Amino acid sequence: MSADWLDKVKWDENGLVPAIAQEFSTNTVLTLAWMNRESLTKTVTTGEAHYWSRSKTRLWKKGERSGHVQKVKEIRLDCDDDVVLLKVEQAGGIACHTGRHSCFFQKLDNDRWTTVEPVIKDPKEIYKP
Amino acid sequence: MSADWLDKVKWDENGLVPAIAQEFSTNTVLTLAWMNRESLTKTVTTGEAHYWSRSKTRLWKKGERSGHVQKVKEIRLDCDDDVVLLKVEQAGGIACHTGRHSCFFQKLDNDRWTTVEPVIKDPKEIYKP
Repeated sequence: MSADWLDKVKWDENGLVPAIAQEFSTNTVLTLAWMNRESLTKTVTTGEAHYWSRSKTRLWKKGERSGHVQKVKEIRLDCDDDVVLLKVEQAGGIACHTGRHSCFFQKLDNDRWTTVEPVIKDPKEIYKP
Repeated sequence: MSADWLDKVKWDENGLVPAIAQEFSTNTVLTLAWMNRESLTKTVTTGEAHYWSRSKTRLWKKGERSGHVQKVKEIRLDCDDDVVLLKVEQAGGIACHTGRHSCFFQKLDNDRWTTVEPVIKDPKEIYKP
């Protein structure tokens, strides 16, 4: 897992960088998750988005339970080398664990966060036991 | 600076959250910067993007030197309440300190980060002494 392109990324003190996933076809911003070297490597080698779960402290393949994988079309790095942008095809059109297209469904409206995106599929249907 | 909508945001251990700026008209992802309570408050009250500079450890109005301010059209919050998305009009069409439209101008191509966006304006012209 050592390579020039991986070493160019400025991993933070926890070995992580934020990774934005943007829908390739619509440019919708779907999610922001975190990556370490292993997850970025896996993303590149498999062509599917892998992240580091800070809550579960483990490698996490997006869609591993839901099937809502992100097929990666393009990977970008920002000018400071410390933020990754993935352009992805979102399986099922659902990126959010709430069953919505995008995680950014709360809009600030007169000092209130208002939900402005519909649930496409009930999470109970997505995450069956 | 205390308000329900501000308290809903899950500020990290440093009092910060990542804030993505996306161009309103094109959906291009322009930048990722960091916000604290003060910068988000200023963003809301002035209608222009303010961030927290982690390197300079101070409030920072985007475009304060370059004139490349970000006029905020919409503010979103993600499902975990810990990432902000701004939809902005980018003054000058230049968000990056390198003089490019977007900060995400490096694309991974066969194990190399390749610059794929042109410089619109020479930084020497943008940041005159």
